[in-house]
Amino acid sequence: MAAARTLRIGLIPGDGIGREVIPAGRRILESLPSSLNLKFSFVDLDAGYETFQKTGTALPDKTVDTLKKECDGALFGAVSSPSTKVAGYSSPIVALRKKLDLYANVRPVKTTAGNTNGKPIDLVIVRENTEDLYVKEERTIEGPNGKVAEAIKRISEHASFRISNIAGEIALRRQNIRSASPATSTRDQPMVTITHKSNVLSQTDGLFRETARRALAAEKFSSVFVEEQIVDSMVYKLFRQPEFYDVIVAPNLYGDILSDGAAALVGSLGLVPSANVGDGFAIGEPCHGSAPDIEGQGISNPIATIRSVALMLEFLGEEKAAAQIYAAVDGNLDAAQFLTPDMGGKATTQQVLDDVLKRL
Amino acid sequence: MAAARTLRIGLIPGDGIGREVIPAGRRILESLPSSLNLKFSFVDLDAGYETFQKTGTALPDKTVDTLKKECDGALFGAVSSPSTKVAGYSSPIVALRKKLDLYANVRPVKTTAGNTNGKPIDLVIVRENTEDLYVKEERTIEGPNGKVAEAIKRISEHASFRISNIAGEIALRRQNIRSASPATSTRDQPMVTITHKSNVLSQTDGLFRETARRALAAEKFSSVFVEEQIVDSMVYKLFRQPEFYDVIVAPNLYGDILSDGAAALVGSLGLVPSANVGDGFAIGEPCHGSAPDIEGQGISNPIATIRSVALMLEFLGEEKAAAQIYAAVDGNLDAAQFLTPDMGGKATTQQVLDDVLKRL
Ligand SMILES: CC(C)[C@H](C(=O)O)[C@@H](O)C(=O)O
Ligand SMILES: CC(C)[C@H](C(=O)O)[C@@H](O)C(=O)O
Repeated sequence: MAAARTLRIGLIPGDGIGREVIPAGRRILESLPSSLNLKFSFVDLDAGYETFQKTGTALPDKTVDTLKKECDGALFGAVSSPSTKVAGYSSPIVALRKKLDLYANVRPVKTTAGNTNGKPIDLVIVRENTEDLYVKEERTIEGPNGKVAEAIKRISEHASFRISNIAGEIALRRQNIRSASPATSTRDQPMVTITHKSNVLSQTDGLFRETARRALAAEKFSSVFVEEQIVDSMVYKLFRQPEFYDVIVAPNLYGDILSDGAAALVGSLGLVPSANVGDGFAIGEPCHGSAPDIEGQGISNPIATIRSVALMLEFLGEEKAAAQIYAAVDGNLDAAQFLTPDMGGKATTQQVLDDVLKRL
Repeated sequence: MAAARTLRIGLIPGDGIGREVIPAGRRILESLPSSLNLKFSFVDLDAGYETFQKTGTALPDKTVDTLKKECDGALFGAVSSPSTKVAGYSSPIVALRKKLDLYANVRPVKTTAGNTNGKPIDLVIVRENTEDLYVKEERTIEGPNGKVAEAIKRISEHASFRISNIAGEIALRRQNIRSASPATSTRDQPMVTITHKSNVLSQTDGLFRETARRALAAEKFSSVFVEEQIVDSMVYKLFRQPEFYDVIVAPNLYGDILSDGAAALVGSLGLVPSANVGDGFAIGEPCHGSAPDIEGQGISNPIATIRSVALMLEFLGEEKAAAQIYAAVDGNLDAAQFLTPDMGGKATTQQVLDDVLKRL
């Protein structure tokens, strides 16, 4: 038997329920069947608003350095935002995405066989993760009628190309997985929908759109059907016919908004995972926030984190391990015996975790 | 009896189904009961993509001048966007909003008693209409890694204040209308939800948020409950608990996206009206586009336009006329006898119009 692959994973719980769900994610990794021949080591890392209050920075250099030098991947929980502006505070996850050049934010949204909530949805939002308004270049001037603030929205050919390319690759990979179980698949061709607002922003979003078209016109994507939607119309269609969509690629801010919208379709943000993906590195991150309203009650939904663990593994090349985790989660959801309150159940975080572990 | 008030209305059908629905709007105005003591005169005005192709401009000066000098209000249909970038073409409605300083885009989204589609929704999105990324200040540079395009997102204290102020006034007006029929009302306090993304855009969206808070803290709004939502979370909540919302105030782009999202909740964009409102002037505009796929078949839904007529009248001070039109539309929808195909019916534009006229 070949030597086990050992992956070193940074654990960044952050604030609030991040501290309840990240330990659950760790347990999943530790409990993977030995037949997968994977080993994990862990390093605990700080980030978040509490870290900011203690140390004056929300993202210590040590966290970034350790991730860069020692780790193969990481899990990030959630961070609280101060409710009013606090000088010097700035979101650590946004900074981390840029510092590690995690250029793709991948957010699959999927109903399970037993829980279609009306319509079977199986789509993924591939969000550009490094630029757009998230460059956070802002300034404020005092004008004759009061303050005027400006922010830069930056869209580059380089970033638009690589996000569209990975969107195309994800579409092909999804098609491969579907082909393996044709009986349950209703889609016969992979599809990528390009989202933009080039009818207003002809240069920035125009560049995104043209570049995406060019990237997806590559020979390797010849089997992919490519279409586009203006972002407002995309939100409308996402709600009217979510079952139509496969891969949706979008600039950073539209991707942020669309993924929360898509999450609403499957019943709870507590189900939706994400991965921040760069070349050879991935950070799994549940899409929900730090949820101060339920913090400390032991009832936060660990599913988004568990699925984020799988997604991280997928992008580290461990598709088989990922598939086993997804199947265990689907089993838990379809049985509907252990569900947290956000899903209408009464189970605790621990009970859901135990149920998923049992199915692994 | 006092002399009738005469209002001069500009009619700008634009492209596509704009030419089918604007005549329906005109018919509504011409058919208002004489007891309202209102008279109308009309002037036909050009704008849109076909105008651009003929004349080289999508918004002729004559249209703007006539609106400014002769008109009290207007109805705008829809315009087509070219499917790829066309040099010199730029959206006439965006330009019109700026040139006439129609600073508020008001978009009520409402289910009718007989058609709640699950949950009774009665909310209005009040969208800032003159700035944000819609200033369209863009530039493109050729960098070492290809093109880089930038756009300015501009948020001013001045525009943020006046949009928040009108949002507060709309909340009070809605509360007055509800108080008039307490039996059917489920809300006992007006509410305004401020939407922003100040956790990322601390200066621009931070300014919007602070200014909105300040505007809504005025004594006259003391009965209004004010809350806020980050835009991604707003989209999520809009879909999870739309019945919770009353007035949602947002910068231009978020308002654009949110109003399409809200439209999806009530079944069809073909139902959702808007008004572009300035001081003493209003343009009614259906939220749907030019819909080239159904153009010329006589089946476009006139309801969004008919409601936009009412909304325009509301902002021209004719609330009684507006209420009668809304009631006629509700009657048509609840009877569900004459519905266009987007609503699952088989009626033509003309049949729906006739049915609404009968109820007026
Ligand atoms: C917390 C916030 C900065 C973040 C974002 O806007 O990216 C969040 O909404 C997300 O989607 O991960
Ligand atoms: C056509 C387009 C420029 C316009 C906008 O973005 O404002 C439309 O989407 C709208 O909502 O009226």
